[in-house]
Amino acid sequence: MSSELTLYGYWRSSAAYRVRIALNLKGLAYRQVPVHLLKDGGEQHAPEYRALNPQGLLPLLVDEGGGGVRIAQSLAILEYLDEVFPVPALLPADSVQRAQVRALALHIACDIHPLNNLRVLQYLSAELGVADEAKSDWYRHWLDTGLAAVEQGLAVLSGRLSLGQRPGYLEACLIPQVYNARRFNCDLNAYPRILDIVARCEPLDAFAKAAPEVQADAQ
Amino acid sequence: MSSELTLYGYWRSSAAYRVRIALNLKGLAYRQVPVHLLKDGGEQHAPEYRALNPQGLLPLLVDEGGGGVRIAQSLAILEYLDEVFPVPALLPADSVQRAQVRALALHIACDIHPLNNLRVLQYLSAELGVADEAKSDWYRHWLDTGLAAVEQGLAVLSGRLSLGQRPGYLEACLIPQVYNARRFNCDLNAYPRILDIVARCEPLDAFAKAAPEVQADAQ
Repeated sequence: MSSELTLYGYWRSSAAYRVRIALNLKGLAYRQVPVHLLKDGGEQHAPEYRALNPQGLLPLLVDEGGGGVRIAQSLAILEYLDEVFPVPALLPADSVQRAQVRALALHIACDIHPLNNLRVLQYLSAELGVADEAKSDWYRHWLDTGLAAVEQGLAVLSGRLSLGQRPGYLEACLIPQVYNARRFNCDLNAYPRILDIVARCEPLDAFAKAAPEVQADAQ
Repeated sequence: MSSELTLYGYWRSSAAYRVRIALNLKGLAYRQVPVHLLKDGGEQHAPEYRALNPQGLLPLLVDEGGGGVRIAQSLAILEYLDEVFPVPALLPADSVQRAQVRALALHIACDIHPLNNLRVLQYLSAELGVADEAKSDWYRHWLDTGLAAVEQGLAVLSGRLSLGQRPGYLEACLIPQVYNARRFNCDLNAYPRILDIVARCEPLDAFAKAAPEVQADAQ
């Protein structure tokens, strides 16, 4: 168990939330450094943070045990953690199952989340003059389109979690997306497989301790 | 070398283009099935294709050698290929280097490409009434923001490709993104590291044979 991991995140960043879940599932201790996405025009754009991560995006994992290596992009962090701290695993051992779990996680990470990210919503308002209601429609459109596809895709798992009875890579991506959906009052009743996964994960410590509201920087 | 791989794609889909490059780099034979993104409201939405891939997105890889397994999401396909056909590799062996390569590829796949995808551009026009010029500004904004970050991020590779002297996972994502950038007349002169990678990859057979214009369904 390493105590040399530092996570730069923000309580409500769903990409940071993914990494908190993954670290907790592996039982890894880690220090958190909050980067406030809204204060002072966004601390993620400040030179101090850009020096660590030129992308100016969250999260960022720094592994002092790995020689101070800095890793951006939540899914690259999940893969790194699974390679460097392999037990307990986030991904199944079988290549086909790994591909199925990764594909569902990537559907969330590539085809839902980036479209509803803060910077995109800000662009819609500021640059395109999109009114709040149309912006909410945009949000729900990509969320519903994406979750409906994830719901259908979950059929391949036949009620299993990423690791059979145990959550991992997929659930680390799905639970934060569902958190966002609820925050924006999206109706999830059309997605029974997703709701089943949520019900199985939410009581677990790894998820409860990763929840946005219990983070030190939550406001 | 397998000849039991089938790639459902579209000549101009940059996610399908990534997979063509990866298959070529590995020297794997594959059959292509074109799914026309624009004809008849999009063949990707047709029941026949949805039956194979409920997400209705390209690409999709079917591996008859793997029992007819169907894998969606280009990066999940790249990971699958690297696990099942490990030589030559797409990713380096070292976990830190793997994380750096994956993070750059994910920056393209999550933070550039989804925002400029056909379905998003269609939504901007049809649902939000965004004029062509503002839509071009949107396109260039996310492309420039993203490529600038990738350019800075490439510093960690110090002039190396994914596999040192050999292209792999990152280049399979970067070259299609640069193809799109050129198609939309984006100025790339601010990105010398990216242009250097392009210059090293473009002459290679694996990339030349994956180019959109030489695909059978190119129009």
